[in-house]
Amino acid sequence: MAEAAGRGMRKRVVVVGGGFAGINAAFELAKLPVDVTLVDRRNHYTFQPLLYQIALAVLSPADIAQPIRSLVRDFKNIEVLMDEVVGFDMAGRRVELKTGVRLEYDYLIVATGSTHSYFGKDEWAKVAPGLKTIEDAVEIRRRVLLAFELAEREMMETGVHPPLNFVIIGGGPTGVELAGAISDIAKLYMTKDFRHIDPSMAQVMILEGSPTILGAYPPDLQKKGIEQLNALGITVRTSAHVTDVQPGYVMVGNERIDSGVTLWAAGVQASPLGKLLGVETDRRGCVMVDGHLNPAGHPEVFVCGDLAHVEQDGKQVPGVAQPAMQMGTYAAKRIGRLVAVERGSDGSGKDVPFRYFDKGDMATIGRMAAVAKIEWPFKAHWSGFPAWIVWLVIHIFFLIGFRNRLSVFRQWAWTYLSFKDGVRLITGSQELPGWGERSKTAEKPLDLGSPVS
Amino acid sequence: MAEAAGRGMRKRVVVVGGGFAGINAAFELAKLPVDVTLVDRRNHYTFQPLLYQIALAVLSPADIAQPIRSLVRDFKNIEVLMDEVVGFDMAGRRVELKTGVRLEYDYLIVATGSTHSYFGKDEWAKVAPGLKTIEDAVEIRRRVLLAFELAEREMMETGVHPPLNFVIIGGGPTGVELAGAISDIAKLYMTKDFRHIDPSMAQVMILEGSPTILGAYPPDLQKKGIEQLNALGITVRTSAHVTDVQPGYVMVGNERIDSGVTLWAAGVQASPLGKLLGVETDRRGCVMVDGHLNPAGHPEVFVCGDLAHVEQDGKQVPGVAQPAMQMGTYAAKRIGRLVAVERGSDGSGKDVPFRYFDKGDMATIGRMAAVAKIEWPFKAHWSGFPAWIVWLVIHIFFLIGFRNRLSVFRQWAWTYLSFKDGVRLITGSQELPGWGERSKTAEKPLDLGSPVS
Repeated sequence: MAEAAGRGMRKRVVVVGGGFAGINAAFELAKLPVDVTLVDRRNHYTFQPLLYQIALAVLSPADIAQPIRSLVRDFKNIEVLMDEVVGFDMAGRRVELKTGVRLEYDYLIVATGSTHSYFGKDEWAKVAPGLKTIEDAVEIRRRVLLAFELAEREMMETGVHPPLNFVIIGGGPTGVELAGAISDIAKLYMTKDFRHIDPSMAQVMILEGSPTILGAYPPDLQKKGIEQLNALGITVRTSAHVTDVQPGYVMVGNERIDSGVTLWAAGVQASPLGKLLGVETDRRGCVMVDGHLNPAGHPEVFVCGDLAHVEQDGKQVPGVAQPAMQMGTYAAKRIGRLVAVERGSDGSGKDVPFRYFDKGDMATIGRMAAVAKIEWPFKAHWSGFPAWIVWLVIHIFFLIGFRNRLSVFRQWAWTYLSFKDGVRLITGSQELPGWGERSKTAEKPLDLGSPVS
Repeated sequence: MAEAAGRGMRKRVVVVGGGFAGINAAFELAKLPVDVTLVDRRNHYTFQPLLYQIALAVLSPADIAQPIRSLVRDFKNIEVLMDEVVGFDMAGRRVELKTGVRLEYDYLIVATGSTHSYFGKDEWAKVAPGLKTIEDAVEIRRRVLLAFELAEREMMETGVHPPLNFVIIGGGPTGVELAGAISDIAKLYMTKDFRHIDPSMAQVMILEGSPTILGAYPPDLQKKGIEQLNALGITVRTSAHVTDVQPGYVMVGNERIDSGVTLWAAGVQASPLGKLLGVETDRRGCVMVDGHLNPAGHPEVFVCGDLAHVEQDGKQVPGVAQPAMQMGTYAAKRIGRLVAVERGSDGSGKDVPFRYFDKGDMATIGRMAAVAKIEWPFKAHWSGFPAWIVWLVIHIFFLIGFRNRLSVFRQWAWTYLSFKDGVRLITGSQELPGWGERSKTAEKPLDLGSPVS
């Protein structure tokens, strides 16, 4: 009886999170005889590796984000629900949503990723935003561009060139990419735009708590990375423990470092949904999973992407795009196998555990330089321009959708070849944390006289 | 002596406002032996006639906005200041800025445009946003897209198809364009994206207080406009006086009209800066100017664009892009003449007053239809597809910058030919005024069972 019922009814799969893992799972589930509900708080998938290019006004949000609905539009067995998960009833196999909707599942994939961690100092978030969402990126763009505008104003007010300090906390790939890009727009793109200040006087500093930047890279590429950053005039300080972040400055121990704009690229923690599952998590909130990506005792639940703590060869699989995509695909394929077995197929010989196939890692360092640790199709450590070309090709390739690829390619060609402005729009508020304070300490406003003498 | 000093010193021109009038003035002033400061609260020029296409997710903000600095980058006699004007000292010829900077001028051009008028009911603004800035457009996009998402949620919750009502208050070109575009995205682009609701059930209504929509157009085009709107299924109600705007509904007299999303396209008033000049203004706050665009007694001050009340042939010149551009150019040329006369040149025979050269007006009505009142190079009233083609060509032509033109052309070609998604990103909050209320009155949440049966 149970078997007959199992055969007659299509299994229901709920996927929570429409990032790299969730979308790749959905693409694979589209091929299976299952009904899928994909739930995300946002209506769009974001190609996170290029977020910093929105933050630095090279690309537009629409270039790297795509509505989830449109991505899965042609898969009739997938429905999308924009809602927020507030709980899991693992015994009853139900997902509880904020609106009160409860989704029943036979299989569950949870892939809600990670968020910034301020190491318990959440009050720093306002002063030093991190970069995880389109909104974050637009906010960082606003702050960076506004800093130059406010400096121009202050220069006209006081006649003294104000400092243009940008401090990036965290020397991982995001921190390095942000630093390189700020340096680029200041030195290459903005110099002709201002009459009073000299944007190329911008000082960019990376503060990294550990003894080295780009910790996930081999030592030779770390060294190349520092060299390339220094060549751009970026100061890199390692073993620098930030003890306070305030409007206008950052404290490293007892040393005060002035900062017009402070950005956070230091810590991540798992999405809080990991804890809601009620299973074992690590200290960052990632869910401990076995070789099938299941938390203990729940072969019907898969945790993928940044939210999963997967050990491989004694190391934790990193929280980047590639493993997330591979986990999403694996979980969906595994569900396909379990469904087939339940339907009476012999699943023997296919019970392979998940294994991350590492093709390499890369990070850009400003315009036309990068570090790349290539693992496949051959092993190599590249840096500089060749690494940047690899980065360019791979990132265009992995962008979802022909339209986005075309648009990004055109945008890049324009920006990199013409040195012309990208999309340097300041939207939202005109206030910058800390700038008011500095202005108050400035000299009494002077009449300008002839603005261009 | 005075003459010698006059010859030796370059005159200073302050332009307040970087819209159609201000930018066109700047382009003309770039040719003159004067020093120019262009002040705007925002860092970007916005091509307002296409704002509604951002609101309806066809174009991206960067397609129609451009940093003011980059527009005037090559004009060495123009500097840009992102700041807010808080006062004018007309006797001392100084502009007072929020930061405390005071700009001295010999000539002043004020062109700060207009803003929404809620006829004293400013509390309506939160419920029914208007469309003047990039931020407005992104907010309207958020609300329109979210309405479909929330309807899908509610349908899953209750099993009953919720109403999808969009009410646009105001039947001028903006109201008509918004209505047509909402109808389009609902019926053409969104139908494949949802599994539960039917987006084509969206009801769009225009509420116009006066007896006719498109009041600035001749009666035959008004009639065509209504026909084309009706063909799209849009309800047009004229002589409909809105007495209250609340989350979830609009009152017309004692009649309650349900509205999931309410947009405001009804009234405009002059920017408050007009009043700060301390000269005569009309009831909407527009500055009364003479044939040289000067307020009485101030031949050194020019008021241009929407902020100016200019009478021509017994009618007020309308607050649209063309007259604004022409006024900006006129004011700059007039300054050129005054500067030349002061330098001893004979300016006789050139003292022509401003005259608006009307090439026509047009408004789109959804995809591939429009009404066009053509005045030049020939007179004609066109509607439907031919009018839409004219609209398309003219709007691409007047977009500033090759890059924007290319981008918009590509985007339009893609969207209109492929019926594919534009840039339907929901950013910002997930809340929609009034939707929570409606949800509370809905039936008790049901379990879903199989999401796709």
